[in-house]
Amino acid sequence: MPLDEKWKSACIITIGNELLKGRTVNTNFTEIAKMLTDHGVEVTSGLVVMDAPESIGWAIKTALLSSDIIVTSGGLGPTFDDMTLASIGEALGIDMIENLDALEMLKARFGKMHLELTASRRKMAVFPEGSEIIPNSVGSAPGMLLNHEGRIIISLPGVPSEMRSMLASAIPRVIGHDFFYFDKSITFPGVMESQLAPFVSDIMRRPGNMAYIKSHPLQTEDKNPGIKVEVSARTDSLAKSMEIVETMLREIQEIVKKFGKSSA
Amino acid sequence: MPLDEKWKSACIITIGNELLKGRTVNTNFTEIAKMLTDHGVEVTSGLVVMDAPESIGWAIKTALLSSDIIVTSGGLGPTFDDMTLASIGEALGIDMIENLDALEMLKARFGKMHLELTASRRKMAVFPEGSEIIPNSVGSAPGMLLNHEGRIIISLPGVPSEMRSMLASAIPRVIGHDFFYFDKSITFPGVMESQLAPFVSDIMRRPGNMAYIKSHPLQTEDKNPGIKVEVSARTDSLAKSMEIVETMLREIQEIVKKFGKSSA
Repeated sequence: MPLDEKWKSACIITIGNELLKGRTVNTNFTEIAKMLTDHGVEVTSGLVVMDAPESIGWAIKTALLSSDIIVTSGGLGPTFDDMTLASIGEALGIDMIENLDALEMLKARFGKMHLELTASRRKMAVFPEGSEIIPNSVGSAPGMLLNHEGRIIISLPGVPSEMRSMLASAIPRVIGHDFFYFDKSITFPGVMESQLAPFVSDIMRRPGNMAYIKSHPLQTEDKNPGIKVEVSARTDSLAKSMEIVETMLREIQEIVKKFGKSSA
Repeated sequence: MPLDEKWKSACIITIGNELLKGRTVNTNFTEIAKMLTDHGVEVTSGLVVMDAPESIGWAIKTALLSSDIIVTSGGLGPTFDDMTLASIGEALGIDMIENLDALEMLKARFGKMHLELTASRRKMAVFPEGSEIIPNSVGSAPGMLLNHEGRIIISLPGVPSEMRSMLASAIPRVIGHDFFYFDKSITFPGVMESQLAPFVSDIMRRPGNMAYIKSHPLQTEDKNPGIKVEVSARTDSLAKSMEIVETMLREIQEIVKKFGKSSA
């Protein structure tokens, strides 16, 4: 099935030892996941890896096995531990070359600051051959957009403000046609997750079901039970996604109404 | 090399579609990473996967390839999408059995609430054969501690308060002897990351170097530059880790002092 006929799947690779030491909460992952989801992309996995060429290379190769779109965040700057692009090039056997678009951007940026384009800074212009550049209007390091055998790799800096604006500019260059994701939640006070569970299992296994149902307990089961039930759908029209979700929520409300009176 | 002679490596697997949709910030990952790091465990990767048996199974098999300790979070409750333990059992070819310790805990817990042990609730007592149980003093679902061919798998609930106390109780059961991680940061105002980068590269490549150096730019390079330099070490004594870090920081201070006067 060609990519356009279905929604695309994505893997997010976040790079940084500070994430793996528990120093930094991985909000970049969450922001990237939300932006992709809002454009109808299904984020199916995330990989968090160290600032090391073999770790980054492993992550890229792993993500390529199952994802149409791969977004990496972190490791594009001038220092020794900024090695994302070189690691991707090495992992995929692609030569690294000085990209003229990137070089122009860096020259303009540092020139305006009356700063020399040192070797460390010039490193930010070296990309895997065939890359397109994602301009960075907030900081220095340009981003990468690489079509590798029909799969798209987007590499963004780890600085949240840079990452955010660059992903927003890259998404329309990658996604031809949006899918429409919709979800809605209803809270049922007095209902325990384990009461609803068997009914939801049955619905989820029903042939042709296009709704995804997830329940979250609001309290522990011993005191003031309650659950929030979230129903979601992702189709080629927002109206259709909404209709599927609303219909399912009505069905769940009916179920809850029935056992509501007989519950403990 | 036996595990005791070196520090252990870990992979953290966080499970939940809400993470991959960008609805929930993955603070569980950060908390688990911090607790493991504080006990001298080196967290080398993280995997975020969907509530689906094949995703969870893939994550476990992937983590087992490179990690001594695997910690999973999420998917231990009574609902249809709580499938972590069954997925682990299936992936590793281990039979699922009703664990008597877990069953006792659930009977006691629900009995105290005068609640029936329904099939959905009883599911929380089904574990891969050979598992030890991690009691849950906060909520219902017990956790799993499984020694699989010399590697340890710890499965915890996704509810942060439950996860936290259960991991704290599981760590001493797993880690015989702590390694000691120490790091310290110094801020250098007026220094740009790209100025220090070549010196740090040289130090990191020096044979026998036991310090890890990471610099974080404090601002973008155009205005008020400054960097925070973090040096870390992980050895078998805290004194040794501290000494390595302090010595390295003094060396970096000397370097900065030299080029401080000649900088742009």
